[in-house]
Amino acid sequence: MKGRDMSKNTVKVGIIGSTGYAGAEIARLLLGHRDVEIKWLVSRSFCGQNYEDIFRNLFEVIEKECTDISLSDMAGDVDVIFTATPQGYLQGELKADVLDKCRIIDMSADYRIKDVKIYEKWYGIEHHSPELLKESVYGLTEVNRDKIKDARLLANPGCFTTCSILTAYPLMKEHMIEKDSLVINALSGVSGAGRGAKVANLFCEVNESAKAYGVTTHRHTPEIEEQLGYAYGENVVLQFTPHLIPMHRGILATETARMAGKYTYEEIKAVYDRYYKDERFIRVLKKDMCPETRFVEGSNYTDVNFKIDERTGNIIMMGALDNLEKGAASQAVQNFNVMFGFDEAEGIDMIPMVP
Amino acid sequence: MKGRDMSKNTVKVGIIGSTGYAGAEIARLLLGHRDVEIKWLVSRSFCGQNYEDIFRNLFEVIEKECTDISLSDMAGDVDVIFTATPQGYLQGELKADVLDKCRIIDMSADYRIKDVKIYEKWYGIEHHSPELLKESVYGLTEVNRDKIKDARLLANPGCFTTCSILTAYPLMKEHMIEKDSLVINALSGVSGAGRGAKVANLFCEVNESAKAYGVTTHRHTPEIEEQLGYAYGENVVLQFTPHLIPMHRGILATETARMAGKYTYEEIKAVYDRYYKDERFIRVLKKDMCPETRFVEGSNYTDVNFKIDERTGNIIMMGALDNLEKGAASQAVQNFNVMFGFDEAEGIDMIPMVP
Amino acid sequence: MKGRDMSKNTVKVGIIGSTGYAGAEIARLLLGHRDVEIKWLVSRSFCGQNYEDIFRNLFEVIEKECTDISLSDMAGDVDVIFTATPQGYLQGELKADVLDKCRIIDMSADYRIKDVKIYEKWYGIEHHSPELLKESVYGLTEVNRDKIKDARLLANPGCFTTCSILTAYPLMKEHMIEKDSLVINALSGVSGAGRGAKVANLFCEVNESAKAYGVTTHRHTPEIEEQLGYAYGENVVLQFTPHLIPMHRGILATETARMAGKYTYEEIKAVYDRYYKDERFIRVLKKDMCPETRFVEGSNYTDVNFKIDERTGNIIMMGALDNLEKGAASQAVQNFNVMFGFDEAEGIDMIPMVP
Amino acid sequence: MKGRDMSKNTVKVGIIGSTGYAGAEIARLLLGHRDVEIKWLVSRSFCGQNYEDIFRNLFEVIEKECTDISLSDMAGDVDVIFTATPQGYLQGELKADVLDKCRIIDMSADYRIKDVKIYEKWYGIEHHSPELLKESVYGLTEVNRDKIKDARLLANPGCFTTCSILTAYPLMKEHMIEKDSLVINALSGVSGAGRGAKVANLFCEVNESAKAYGVTTHRHTPEIEEQLGYAYGENVVLQFTPHLIPMHRGILATETARMAGKYTYEEIKAVYDRYYKDERFIRVLKKDMCPETRFVEGSNYTDVNFKIDERTGNIIMMGALDNLEKGAASQAVQNFNVMFGFDEAEGIDMIPMVP
Repeated sequence: MKGRDMSKNTVKVGIIGSTGYAGAEIARLLLGHRDVEIKWLVSRSFCGQNYEDIFRNLFEVIEKECTDISLSDMAGDVDVIFTATPQGYLQGELKADVLDKCRIIDMSADYRIKDVKIYEKWYGIEHHSPELLKESVYGLTEVNRDKIKDARLLANPGCFTTCSILTAYPLMKEHMIEKDSLVINALSGVSGAGRGAKVANLFCEVNESAKAYGVTTHRHTPEIEEQLGYAYGENVVLQFTPHLIPMHRGILATETARMAGKYTYEEIKAVYDRYYKDERFIRVLKKDMCPETRFVEGSNYTDVNFKIDERTGNIIMMGALDNLEKGAASQAVQNFNVMFGFDEAEGIDMIPMVP
Repeated sequence: MKGRDMSKNTVKVGIIGSTGYAGAEIARLLLGHRDVEIKWLVSRSFCGQNYEDIFRNLFEVIEKECTDISLSDMAGDVDVIFTATPQGYLQGELKADVLDKCRIIDMSADYRIKDVKIYEKWYGIEHHSPELLKESVYGLTEVNRDKIKDARLLANPGCFTTCSILTAYPLMKEHMIEKDSLVINALSGVSGAGRGAKVANLFCEVNESAKAYGVTTHRHTPEIEEQLGYAYGENVVLQFTPHLIPMHRGILATETARMAGKYTYEEIKAVYDRYYKDERFIRVLKKDMCPETRFVEGSNYTDVNFKIDERTGNIIMMGALDNLEKGAASQAVQNFNVMFGFDEAEGIDMIPMVP
Repeated sequence: MKGRDMSKNTVKVGIIGSTGYAGAEIARLLLGHRDVEIKWLVSRSFCGQNYEDIFRNLFEVIEKECTDISLSDMAGDVDVIFTATPQGYLQGELKADVLDKCRIIDMSADYRIKDVKIYEKWYGIEHHSPELLKESVYGLTEVNRDKIKDARLLANPGCFTTCSILTAYPLMKEHMIEKDSLVINALSGVSGAGRGAKVANLFCEVNESAKAYGVTTHRHTPEIEEQLGYAYGENVVLQFTPHLIPMHRGILATETARMAGKYTYEEIKAVYDRYYKDERFIRVLKKDMCPETRFVEGSNYTDVNFKIDERTGNIIMMGALDNLEKGAASQAVQNFNVMFGFDEAEGIDMIPMVP
Repeated sequence: MKGRDMSKNTVKVGIIGSTGYAGAEIARLLLGHRDVEIKWLVSRSFCGQNYEDIFRNLFEVIEKECTDISLSDMAGDVDVIFTATPQGYLQGELKADVLDKCRIIDMSADYRIKDVKIYEKWYGIEHHSPELLKESVYGLTEVNRDKIKDARLLANPGCFTTCSILTAYPLMKEHMIEKDSLVINALSGVSGAGRGAKVANLFCEVNESAKAYGVTTHRHTPEIEEQLGYAYGENVVLQFTPHLIPMHRGILATETARMAGKYTYEEIKAVYDRYYKDERFIRVLKKDMCPETRFVEGSNYTDVNFKIDERTGNIIMMGALDNLEKGAASQAVQNFNVMFGFDEAEGIDMIPMVP
């Protein structure tokens, strides 16, 4: 191995679903973490292959084969398992005794939504371990930091949801926008669609085009509604419309809402600052600057800002993050850091790279 | 010249601003038109240069130098002038006597907005020929076809506006959506930003990123409001938020509105069909299909569709077009065809090319 | 159907492999051809589906289902069959009696290489109808026009090969370069890799990257060598290295060779002009202008040029074409036009669209 | 400032030309370096502006204004100056006494070429401080590490050159290829063209296209020839043809040469390994794997490999690096580390990010 000394690493980690984009990004980030040893890279499809042959950016950085060890077998051998697996996998496999042996950080939606009926309706699958929903913690770090510390089962938020929630959170919590007026239009890079071999995600099908998809039915809708409902203190109903655009990474959320009163720029700005100025990974931009995904790409940052339209009585809130980082892998590592007592920025302190 | 026989061409054309993207696209389309002779290609910056050296796609297709002839000098020598010029140019130059000599198809906003005060407020410039606003015709072909026939001064619509209006037009006209509830989020390819040498439009600044811009202040807002107001029969106020995404061409409009009553899919579809089924260049897609810009790229088509959300009471209307074609050049030629009595599809009957 | 009148169409056409990129482009071009009726769109994978639902650019342009009719059944019902099928398909299916009923334009390599041993070595498959190689005609239109007229079995050239051959052809034929010194480096857009669902061609695997592939083993090598060997009059051995770069369409060939003597720019230019100045679809650029793929995209053009390096004694020849057009579909239609007595440019007279 | 503690930083740095892509990347890398204090960010065009407003990826990461301090004024205040300036700037400004006060790492070509006549011929400008050429050290770290340690004036190599040289270096030095047979075709991402406002580098001019440029005249030619000449021990003449392709970052070099004898894969591999296996930032890939730029993007790695063609007697050598990193900024920091006694990987130990 060229240059990475792992001798002092202490927290033992397994990654299930390690050859998808999110799983691979978790692996890459943990390779830069001071106190982690990656013990298992699990992949059914690539079982027996060298990880560095699949992700050749890691050539000579990691020397490890993909295996197909089961969740329960791995549980006794590691301190934490990251599951970057399809919807339904974990809730079908997980038993309470696994959580006695190790902690789990799950990238799927299996334990994000507390109401099992809503999960089953929007995902169209039965939930096989609803009893675990009680103890799962929703891993939006900046909102749930205290609960995350002791979580055994961490439900890492979705990419659209992290961006959508953080962008509107302060004003929703302060009742400064009308709660059911929210229209969220969000743009996503293609990596959010995963690494599966589908015609729809071929370069020649996706490049030089844009489309809305999942209109009225996208599964991140109830997740956003639930969390913003907690913020507001009442149920929230909103319109969420995602779009696919030709770039690798990035979520941009544009959120239009009716203001609940007459507020000045300074008043709104003060609220955002109150919530976020001490947050290392959330940046409230200067007046009139619109978030751009390139300025957060490759980092754990979420950039947010807003613009009041006195003419219409609306406020337009905007947020940008990297869907594979704060929208998936780096937020998972951020939560990992909180759970295991590390500096919250350990291993995820990347400065966005431009261009 | 290889292969293009111009001997029988009859309508004489001049293009001012012929070296921008819209002007060049008008030239390219007219080269494929049966009865057009391009007499003048005007460009201040490229004066004296061969057009085929600037746009090398036209190498050996057209042999003509760029000149810097004035509007009034050209007027007597051609039947129609296309002005693909910056905002303010035409209203500063145009006098009524020019219109006695030739017709004008203007790509700028100078004669689109009937209320000169609104123009001056949103564009921040004084209007020097407001007396001509009376006779200018707004060139949204499908809506104003009859007036266009005799127009001497044709105000060709903007790209965002064409897409935004056509997408909502039938439901606004039929009062099936609440008139002031419209939230339009639109995405644009980079060619909409023009061919000027600006750092902001460099490949490395634009690629792999997305941003909103002109939030609450974009100049296409009053144009959309005015035209949809005509459709509704009353003033309309709406929220329009444009975004820049990394592709050459394409506008995608996602328009969310509150439904004015309970309507079924079939009822709404019937309305769209009533308005558009005989329109050659507007395609109402099949149920649940979302417009994608790649499927209209390079053509004069606008693809539209909608989705009802019974859960929220909203309807999401969607439209896609090519900003340089139906959003600029090919709609200009469509209007030209109407004005000069050609088949409306002459020269603009391109089938979109995928990929 | 909106706007396309097929009543007068006369030549009946079937397309096998109509849902790949090349097959779909042939269909799109033929829809713009004056005297063609598309009778059969064959696709095993999409059998029974509406063609306009698969290629939604053709929505309301063509109303036809994909079928799975066999080659021999179709033969009696059409005048010509385009086969845009995988290597080996046609040579395994085709019998001489099919050619008595209809003509075939084949996009694969099955009948391009006259020496069956070379075919079998480079393609690694057995040839099942080598007796038909005698009558197949290599469809490089500008070189073999006379033979193409009467061809029953037309072997349409590959994309890299068309570009590589046309770029070097005049100097090779005139013995102005050393025949075995040719180093061809070529770049290809991603559509050349086809429309199959492969991880390697996903947007996120291909975008923002470049690589060489098939180094020393690419199957277009013997095809280029054979044709340039005919031009030179002796066997030619050359080095061909293809690369994949992130764009939809385009082949750019950069060909370095040792000059066989001291020639001036004017002497070389005169040779290129002698071969190509009357060719409608080959453009020899002005001095010092390098071909760019964008200037031929969507057209049947091949742009070529060269630069002499007196310092090294080499000449660098350059060529650009659109791999799906002159490199596949539009050259197939060009050959179709020659075979059926149409104007050679009928249906393929597109002016490249920029941007 | 969020999260970066600079209190212990010790080496004081100034960057001239800090608002170009290379200068900004140096700044970004040094912000992650343990023992650096950035004292001056010099930019004539952006003088007085906040650096974080220009490069908003650095918002809340660095708080510093751009200034326009002169080279000699800055010399006494810092330990080292990075000059990311246009060709000719430094050789016109630099006097020997500046080097008595601080060390210089120059990103331009001003002190790369030892023969001033060759510099003046290829760059077309007069050299005003040729006396300093004697002491300048060519900063190809892996080749010149020992000389770099004590360098006062470090000439950081060009992007094409670093890639081209490292790819062929072992075989050239071992005389295993014919020295004058080398044909280098190289592809570059657009960031290599700089951040100036030029029409030619607009998204819509560059995207979806490829071209060769600087054919026979590119200024990196003599730099590659000089360095490979040192390796071989005699003058080397070669053919270098660069190409521009639509991606942000990356150089891919494909180098074809005649082998000087019959060598097996194992023999050649052993030579590459001998030169590079202990080099942290050069990776010799496994057999038959071709370098891809995405696998080195954002890192200081150079990936190299080769393929023997027994049929032609040629060898094809391939190399990939990130033009802004190993091709510019991170190699500059690597040299800085060598010059100031840091671990060579300090601040530049990034693992490439995919996708």
